[in-house]
Amino acid sequence: MAEIGIILGSDTDLPKISGCFTTLEEFGVTYEIIISSAHRSPEKTREWALSARAKGFRALIAVAGGAAHLPGVVASHTTLPVIGVPVETTVSGGLDSILSIIQMPAGIPVAAMPAGKSGGTNAALFAVQILSLSDSSYAEKLTAYRKKIADDISAKNEKLKSLGHMEYIKSLEAKK
Amino acid sequence: MAEIGIILGSDTDLPKISGCFTTLEEFGVTYEIIISSAHRSPEKTREWALSARAKGFRALIAVAGGAAHLPGVVASHTTLPVIGVPVETTVSGGLDSILSIIQMPAGIPVAAMPAGKSGGTNAALFAVQILSLSDSSYAEKLTAYRKKIADDISAKNEKLKSLGHMEYIKSLEAKK
Amino acid sequence: MAEIGIILGSDTDLPKISGCFTTLEEFGVTYEIIISSAHRSPEKTREWALSARAKGFRALIAVAGGAAHLPGVVASHTTLPVIGVPVETTVSGGLDSILSIIQMPAGIPVAAMPAGKSGGTNAALFAVQILSLSDSSYAEKLTAYRKKIADDISAKNEKLKSLGHMEYIKSLEAKK
Amino acid sequence: MAEIGIILGSDTDLPKISGCFTTLEEFGVTYEIIISSAHRSPEKTREWALSARAKGFRALIAVAGGAAHLPGVVASHTTLPVIGVPVETTVSGGLDSILSIIQMPAGIPVAAMPAGKSGGTNAALFAVQILSLSDSSYAEKLTAYRKKIADDISAKNEKLKSLGHMEYIKSLEAKK
Amino acid sequence: MAEIGIILGSDTDLPKISGCFTTLEEFGVTYEIIISSAHRSPEKTREWALSARAKGFRALIAVAGGAAHLPGVVASHTTLPVIGVPVETTVSGGLDSILSIIQMPAGIPVAAMPAGKSGGTNAALFAVQILSLSDSSYAEKLTAYRKKIADDISAKNEKLKSLGHMEYIKSLEAKK
Amino acid sequence: MAEIGIILGSDTDLPKISGCFTTLEEFGVTYEIIISSAHRSPEKTREWALSARAKGFRALIAVAGGAAHLPGVVASHTTLPVIGVPVETTVSGGLDSILSIIQMPAGIPVAAMPAGKSGGTNAALFAVQILSLSDSSYAEKLTAYRKKIADDISAKNEKLKSLGHMEYIKSLEAKK
Amino acid sequence: MAEIGIILGSDTDLPKISGCFTTLEEFGVTYEIIISSAHRSPEKTREWALSARAKGFRALIAVAGGAAHLPGVVASHTTLPVIGVPVETTVSGGLDSILSIIQMPAGIPVAAMPAGKSGGTNAALFAVQILSLSDSSYAEKLTAYRKKIADDISAKNEKLKSLGHMEYIKSLEAKK
Amino acid sequence: MAEIGIILGSDTDLPKISGCFTTLEEFGVTYEIIISSAHRSPEKTREWALSARAKGFRALIAVAGGAAHLPGVVASHTTLPVIGVPVETTVSGGLDSILSIIQMPAGIPVAAMPAGKSGGTNAALFAVQILSLSDSSYAEKLTAYRKKIADDISAKNEKLKSLGHMEYIKSLEAKK
Repeated sequence: MAEIGIILGSDTDLPKISGCFTTLEEFGVTYEIIISSAHRSPEKTREWALSARAKGFRALIAVAGGAAHLPGVVASHTTLPVIGVPVETTVSGGLDSILSIIQMPAGIPVAAMPAGKSGGTNAALFAVQILSLSDSSYAEKLTAYRKKIADDISAKNEKLKSLGHMEYIKSLEAKK
Repeated sequence: MAEIGIILGSDTDLPKISGCFTTLEEFGVTYEIIISSAHRSPEKTREWALSARAKGFRALIAVAGGAAHLPGVVASHTTLPVIGVPVETTVSGGLDSILSIIQMPAGIPVAAMPAGKSGGTNAALFAVQILSLSDSSYAEKLTAYRKKIADDISAKNEKLKSLGHMEYIKSLEAKK
Repeated sequence: MAEIGIILGSDTDLPKISGCFTTLEEFGVTYEIIISSAHRSPEKTREWALSARAKGFRALIAVAGGAAHLPGVVASHTTLPVIGVPVETTVSGGLDSILSIIQMPAGIPVAAMPAGKSGGTNAALFAVQILSLSDSSYAEKLTAYRKKIADDISAKNEKLKSLGHMEYIKSLEAKK
Repeated sequence: MAEIGIILGSDTDLPKISGCFTTLEEFGVTYEIIISSAHRSPEKTREWALSARAKGFRALIAVAGGAAHLPGVVASHTTLPVIGVPVETTVSGGLDSILSIIQMPAGIPVAAMPAGKSGGTNAALFAVQILSLSDSSYAEKLTAYRKKIADDISAKNEKLKSLGHMEYIKSLEAKK
Repeated sequence: MAEIGIILGSDTDLPKISGCFTTLEEFGVTYEIIISSAHRSPEKTREWALSARAKGFRALIAVAGGAAHLPGVVASHTTLPVIGVPVETTVSGGLDSILSIIQMPAGIPVAAMPAGKSGGTNAALFAVQILSLSDSSYAEKLTAYRKKIADDISAKNEKLKSLGHMEYIKSLEAKK
Repeated sequence: MAEIGIILGSDTDLPKISGCFTTLEEFGVTYEIIISSAHRSPEKTREWALSARAKGFRALIAVAGGAAHLPGVVASHTTLPVIGVPVETTVSGGLDSILSIIQMPAGIPVAAMPAGKSGGTNAALFAVQILSLSDSSYAEKLTAYRKKIADDISAKNEKLKSLGHMEYIKSLEAKK
Repeated sequence: MAEIGIILGSDTDLPKISGCFTTLEEFGVTYEIIISSAHRSPEKTREWALSARAKGFRALIAVAGGAAHLPGVVASHTTLPVIGVPVETTVSGGLDSILSIIQMPAGIPVAAMPAGKSGGTNAALFAVQILSLSDSSYAEKLTAYRKKIADDISAKNEKLKSLGHMEYIKSLEAKK
Repeated sequence: MAEIGIILGSDTDLPKISGCFTTLEEFGVTYEIIISSAHRSPEKTREWALSARAKGFRALIAVAGGAAHLPGVVASHTTLPVIGVPVETTVSGGLDSILSIIQMPAGIPVAAMPAGKSGGTNAALFAVQILSLSDSSYAEKLTAYRKKIADDISAKNEKLKSLGHMEYIKSLEAKK
């Protein structure tokens, strides 16, 4: 059985959280993806959430934009940790999604992640951090991951020193 | 059977939409009130919404604040018209409630009313407008209501002319 | 006579709510479109709204952006249900349109729909939900519509299972 | 005939723009006040605006909160200069009123004033500035007014120098 | 001497308010344009504002974005009517410009126009409305202008009726 | 050793999250509270975060308002799950705190909770949900807690039915 | 001659930045206060700013709310460092003041401080940090100040440990 | 040793503040650039800030977007003046970055610059203004810079007069 369940309100959100999938794979975490809307397929969403703990999931990631009720609706049907990822919209760049996900009432928590590309990545990492409490191999991988992202910055500084900022900026533009 | 079903996410919202109850009564519309949260009592909310059309309700009014998922969750379980009333909160005076209620995805509409005291009154009036399509007595009452609120303004202008604005302002303060 | 009257503040809003027209047609609802601004053609707007009930319309849909007074102005001249659709603008992605449409004063309700593409579709669906109260064939069509959008999600999940998310994302990009 | 026409959407706005009345009186400008809502008394509002130029008004001041359509609706019926004053509300302290008044479409201008107490005062001053173009006595009074408000600041600086800021702050608190 | 003085904080704002120039020309109003920043050329701005009434201007139009202090700074140096036009920025689509221009303190009014393309056009029209108080030919032109924009809408409705909305939308796309 | 570490940027935030303490106690979860600012005591904050996993904490709760960097700073020094609680401020009722906590960059996740009183309670519940993954007694308590909050709503509905909404509202006011 | 010049747009802002005065005094920094509005006394403001460097000031602190042009206007007339303090208003708790002060155009910098009580204190501290570059006694005092605010937090933790959080919260309430 | 230290949370921010580098060079100010995140490389960031005064920097410029904790974290480890530059994001065009940088708590000041391209330029200029207090050559260069940007505006006005605004707009478009 997969460790993490991921639910998306719309299939068009799949590419927006691709960082979630690649990060989970990088850590060797198993996951399952389901597309199900809080509003358009409420029964599927409810059944998935109600059975999530029994199926062995350890945490759920729910991705939605606009009114973005999905994370809250999932959380209302399970006591597993639910991580909510707001998808960017045109209303203030996703302020609607952010507020709909973060402002949950007392009693039913959702862990809100950032809007935009960081959201998917951080949802995956937060899930691994939860898993790391009972599986020390994840704790070690997280430590290594933190070291790696700090080392990446050191490498960039060395490149910056050798190239100078003018050439560095050009190299950034070349990458695009 | 009552014509209108009213659902509130919290009993503390009851006084905030008292204008809804008095307005429905003014028009002689029957209604039933239930307290049920989208998140804390999801099964009660779902069952109420799923059975709402069969029970004979003609429109539903859902009141919620903060993440304010209740109108959307109710709408996901019924094809009756759902009227959403955002309760004012401290985040920008209810901007979170407003956006969570209005920004519904394509497929499942919610009719969003204003935040604050007008919300309850207008939800009631909008429900009556819907009922008026099949019951001409409501249409007549609505016409009378519109005349009355316009007449009230005329009365205020007469008072303003006779008192002058200085005395009128004093009379407003005396009312408080 | 058409069942639904649609008024747009600007002809440039026509493509922005094309989902409204296709949805009404999908349900077999008759409609009429008029272009008339609350500000630039106030007399035409007023006359249209004043005569709307007599002409047999059952609900009105008003579409506007920016100051977005059109739904409120139409509502001030009729007791028919008025559904307001905010057009996205550059100020916070339509926050001006949203607030101007939703924050109506007590007495004159407008049913606010989401900004953006969902707005047109949901305005149409909400109109059908109102019509369904006195015409059971619409109620049946709404039930079928809800089943269809849930089935569409099931189909997407099957495709996702067979393709995997990597290929699915590629297929999404190919569609564009 | 009065020089300035003032229209308020609600009698409860009278005390909120009392600075408007006192400022106009200070300049010896004649004015008339009418209470009329864009939505609750649309015919009265329209007739008042349509006849405003013929009645001899030189500028109109329209005061409203929330959806705040009144200035725009008045402007749609007259080519007189219309000055709009947003009343503070709970949604972001009047952001709804501000955006509804300022974001008018091309063709029908409204001069938006600040939300809050300054709004009424500045509406009056702006009206006087318009009147000053054809009546040089107003221009002289405006120059004197500007001198007076600058002199008031000089007096405050002298008081601050003699008292010190500690005593000055105490004297401010004593005034309340 | 020109009737209207226009000041822009940056030459890059010239194309953004081109509607202002064409509208003034349409009405036969004379105008002068100056580029001068509130911050980068404060002396030029001050001198221009201080001498504006003596030079014979009847109203001033000030255009600025971001902190957008220009209209307020100009207004602090003259008792002529100052019309402020907020230029759209990336912060909430110009919310910074809007608030900086509208929220003037009591004593020094600025007439705030909408952000975006309408702003320039409406600033020009509002200036003409002011001029119309002492020059009845402008009042007549304004009446004609209002008739024309209403007639344009009637023409669009006829085109819509004859083409149908599908073909009309295509014709809009063809225009781009 | 305590299971949960709670860090507050200011001692004045203690009463604002009292719901956090009572909820943890209700579940029998052990916790330790430290007051330490991200900015005013950065070394204490860093050392606390760096040693948190070794000390045996299973999750950290960080509470802060305004710039609200504390949850992010704590998360930068540990791979334990960090739950961030935004304290309400005067800027849009805590929009600054919300955005500072939720918008973390890719790599270092923080689980953002709602602003206001719900924030403390939900942070506690989310921590218990994490603990429940490796301690089934917490899972059972969570199920019981969910049942209890749903039962509370049923009790309120019974009271509402027996009292009627008028008396119920009076009983709410009496409680204050 | 005083080291720091402080300018306030209104005398009513004096109590709002009292933390600025007490902090400067704590560090033994000399300062002068002037009340002068960007708009109501533009000549006084300009002269004060133009002569500020010659008079020997080392940095200027400008305090304003609403449109809050004062810091920018002062900065346009001097090359001394200008520190801007936004005063809280009702529009989103000072979002108007914040944006007007921070969004200065390229060429004329203003150092924006937080809205609210922290603003005055931090403006004073930032001024001392500037002075510390050429006066090492200030650098030492800043180090001592940082130590003191960290020590205060340690003292609070000790009090928290000895009292427990329940008693600590009571002691906070007793202080009010 | 360099006079100014610049720290960026991400190498992708380098091109966004290129105006900072060119401005410092224009004034002959020496600077060093480091890439270091508040969250991904907290130890590097802390060590850089802790040693900044000893290394001889006179002011620090910190650039970050989103949660944008970097300027505050740097400021917590040094008593040098820290200038914060918010990078524009999609959430309201950088409102999250702006609020996270400006809303620092009392005790640890950060000088917030505008979001967008002006931010880098103004950070550089503000740093030069600080340096000018102890090096009069910088004061002279700043005076010359101010004169130059005012002269540039004069040149633009001459061009505008000779070309007319139609040709001027064309010349702007040609430049792109």
